[in-house]
Amino acid sequence: MLAVHLANRRVEVKNIARPRRADGFALIRLLCGGICNTDLELQRGYYEFSGIPGHEFVGEVVEAEDRSLIGRRVVGEINLNCNCCSWCRKGMGRHCPKRSVLGIVKYPGAFREFLTLPERNLHVIPDSVPTEYAVFTEPLAAACEILDQVNIPCSSQVAVLGDGKLGLLIAQVLNAYGFRVHQFGHHKEKLRIASRAGVSTELVRERIPASAYDWVVEATGSPKGLTDAVRMTRPQGTLILKSTLHGKVGMDTAPVIVNEITLVGSRCGRFEPALELLRNRTINVADMIADRSPLANAPAAFRHAARSGVLKVLLT
Amino acid sequence: MLAVHLANRRVEVKNIARPRRADGFALIRLLCGGICNTDLELQRGYYEFSGIPGHEFVGEVVEAEDRSLIGRRVVGEINLNCNCCSWCRKGMGRHCPKRSVLGIVKYPGAFREFLTLPERNLHVIPDSVPTEYAVFTEPLAAACEILDQVNIPCSSQVAVLGDGKLGLLIAQVLNAYGFRVHQFGHHKEKLRIASRAGVSTELVRERIPASAYDWVVEATGSPKGLTDAVRMTRPQGTLILKSTLHGKVGMDTAPVIVNEITLVGSRCGRFEPALELLRNRTINVADMIADRSPLANAPAAFRHAARSGVLKVLLT
Repeated sequence: MLAVHLANRRVEVKNIARPRRADGFALIRLLCGGICNTDLELQRGYYEFSGIPGHEFVGEVVEAEDRSLIGRRVVGEINLNCNCCSWCRKGMGRHCPKRSVLGIVKYPGAFREFLTLPERNLHVIPDSVPTEYAVFTEPLAAACEILDQVNIPCSSQVAVLGDGKLGLLIAQVLNAYGFRVHQFGHHKEKLRIASRAGVSTELVRERIPASAYDWVVEATGSPKGLTDAVRMTRPQGTLILKSTLHGKVGMDTAPVIVNEITLVGSRCGRFEPALELLRNRTINVADMIADRSPLANAPAAFRHAARSGVLKVLLT
Repeated sequence: MLAVHLANRRVEVKNIARPRRADGFALIRLLCGGICNTDLELQRGYYEFSGIPGHEFVGEVVEAEDRSLIGRRVVGEINLNCNCCSWCRKGMGRHCPKRSVLGIVKYPGAFREFLTLPERNLHVIPDSVPTEYAVFTEPLAAACEILDQVNIPCSSQVAVLGDGKLGLLIAQVLNAYGFRVHQFGHHKEKLRIASRAGVSTELVRERIPASAYDWVVEATGSPKGLTDAVRMTRPQGTLILKSTLHGKVGMDTAPVIVNEITLVGSRCGRFEPALELLRNRTINVADMIADRSPLANAPAAFRHAARSGVLKVLLT
């Protein structure tokens, strides 16, 4: 079977053996994969990754212990946890210290014709949700995670910094939940997607407003974004950090302390609310699809996804 | 009258005119001042400060509109706010954007024979609290601020990183409030002060434990302390930032995001709980006094306070 392979910053497609299903695991045929910024960062050397990338996917279950799964379209949680440590027992398997992570840490990713995942990681996709939309479940869950972490008072103003894929999903999710979202970005066409969903948007030309929001989400993916986000957060406000940056970032901690700002690191989320938002058609993901490419053309697809201004590139 | 003057990294003592009391202000005779790390940082160029430093003080009111204050020993809140903006109206005058700060921002400090402060900033010191102890009110309030900001569950384990003046006060405050405090530091003699108060302490020799505490307070005053503190915080744990560092700090934000850590910037606090702790004799501040020096000897006192291992130097 075909599998994307990433090593020494090169993306290749190889022919490898089909994986065998272990106990408790399902064998899944890939229907669609989504190239995420993390995949592009893995390519740049993040986590010293070498292997099969991919963690955003939709597949069809081919073999499973739970026979009701067979033939169903599924998405899969990306953290493979031990299911027995104190974190897993608390329902916090996403933070299990023994976890591996699909296509990121010590577990081959989803960009291959067939993959295996623990059956307990799988979520059946409602029939009404197209496969190309369902592939957004994982990043949408990461956007929803914010609402599991912080209690933003009803109808608060929230600033979202960044108009990349994650920023657009975050702005739409917060808007859908009734917050007054103002999104800052550098790309008119991208901001238009949020704007169509009812988000107020602003093209950043020079400086962003200082000390203007009690709630700020940083999703620019750039070190400068972090400095801007601290500057725009009001005293005693909360800044949610969504950009995973590679290596050390120069940060002036004084305004964080003087203004008593709370910074909240935020990563993966639960799939349930994300699937619900997709089922409701609350979030416009269709406009975020920039291109589709067969798995065999993954090297070109990765190059395309890495271009500035390009949103989601799908592997089919 | 004598006044300490700080400019171009030099501490001098000058003879200047006694200040005149404005409406709503009290004229206060200095009884005791405490040299804080912030004063030493101002000397190093922080805030591009030039003028009279000093914000930890005890004084006796000489003139005031409220005649009941005259002759009383007082401590004073250091933020001079406008008392009419939306922050002040919310009772958050410590974050008033128009504020000046005693001896730090646009207001001459307390290290002078006579000073003036708004009467609403003053707190009368209970008779049972010695002047030399009351001078710790301001830093003790900064330690108490943590408990106004975060809800730490009863009897939780809390790690305090750093055994300087602020670290020792924080460890003692958290211990007094029933938390199980473990303090890490580099100085045996300093840790002994916390230890005598019932805090468990550990001399840091090599690496600090990783992912070991849900609640961590960073009070080392060093950029390395921040990295250590992030490392020792458990996933979804909370790290309170108390060290104001000068300039940009190289920080790896990835573990904050991957482990979904919450960082809480923390600065000044309310004086009421601090005065209560001093009245109760709950906090041992006596052992933290390293030296006393007349105001006229301020240059030598600043040099002494800046030496490694030296705790509080008082100006009398």
